[in-house]
Amino acid sequence: MLDIYAFATPNSIKVPIALEELGLAYTIHGVNVRKGEQKVPSFIKLNPNAKVPVLVDSERHGAPLVLTESAAILIYLAEKTGKLLPAAGEERARVFEQLFFHASGLGPAFGQSGFFQRQASEPQPLAIQRFSTEAKRTLGVLDGFLAERRFIAGDDYTIADIAHFGWLWRREFAGVTFDETPHVARWYEDVAARPAVERAIARVNALIPQD
Amino acid sequence: MLDIYAFATPNSIKVPIALEELGLAYTIHGVNVRKGEQKVPSFIKLNPNAKVPVLVDSERHGAPLVLTESAAILIYLAEKTGKLLPAAGEERARVFEQLFFHASGLGPAFGQSGFFQRQASEPQPLAIQRFSTEAKRTLGVLDGFLAERRFIAGDDYTIADIAHFGWLWRREFAGVTFDETPHVARWYEDVAARPAVERAIARVNALIPQD
Repeated sequence: MLDIYAFATPNSIKVPIALEELGLAYTIHGVNVRKGEQKVPSFIKLNPNAKVPVLVDSERHGAPLVLTESAAILIYLAEKTGKLLPAAGEERARVFEQLFFHASGLGPAFGQSGFFQRQASEPQPLAIQRFSTEAKRTLGVLDGFLAERRFIAGDDYTIADIAHFGWLWRREFAGVTFDETPHVARWYEDVAARPAVERAIARVNALIPQD
Repeated sequence: MLDIYAFATPNSIKVPIALEELGLAYTIHGVNVRKGEQKVPSFIKLNPNAKVPVLVDSERHGAPLVLTESAAILIYLAEKTGKLLPAAGEERARVFEQLFFHASGLGPAFGQSGFFQRQASEPQPLAIQRFSTEAKRTLGVLDGFLAERRFIAGDDYTIADIAHFGWLWRREFAGVTFDETPHVARWYEDVAARPAVERAIARVNALIPQD
């Protein structure tokens, strides 16, 4: 059994997208981060870093594996199935390069940009400027890659596409549009139209209470 | 031939540490980020994201591989040599988990904490508080892991230790100490005493102009 603990967040969405693409059955457990459920003791036991998503794999030999960090989960699922991650060569290196460009660059820039624009308790104009500029800059870098490649790491759809999709799906929070990045816009439409992506979005959106 | 473009920075240091540990010969090219040399056109051709480090591997078949993102370079070198990254199982998953915890969590928190404390053109108190709290929190999470494991991903020294060492080596910039994280302190002393780490630090420190 594969269990995931997730919500309708930029990092959570990556895991059901991969699971749907790989055709793996899973149970999804909602962790409502808007209510702080990722900070309660029972969840901290799963992830001391208090973040969704978390994967629990009970299908393997020995004790269940509890794994955190969305991109580490993507790698784990790709290696479990032998799919969505080239086995060798430049394309493999490009997948890791893009996973880390998302994790350390574009992702934090989008997240902090949204926080300081929308959630900070008082205005911090320099912080807003810093992170909104960085969000736009990293999106421009991505656009440059996608001008030369169909998918983010090369000719094939990989877990690098799934990773970047997370924050680009939630770009409105960061105040970002695709108006000046036509290659990103083309790529986003391609990825968003994949049936696995549509199914994953429906599943995480169903976690949001309708009240 | 392996060429690296680097400076005495938290992310740069990881690559020569790995190269020294693996016993690989390399040429190091200084890119003085204090003078903005990572933003000049000749460097942007190597890395459109304008960051050090960059690895150029001319030893492989075909065109040289130009690779960015320090953690992606660590994975590439580990796979090239079959060392510092377990081939399977929970320890392998933990290495990736910790590489991403560093890249998306601890690293950005340390970096932004240092920026807003030291380099911002005007005070942004909420940003200082946000990032210094997050730097301390992520260090505490790491201390919890190191209370239970000798190294960051388990019993063995891996590229996850090398990744975390980068920002912990530069913790003073972030205004962080190990006073309340004894397990991190114990681990740091162990890692810093490795001859490969000492040699790598000497090599990147030699890149700083003495004027």
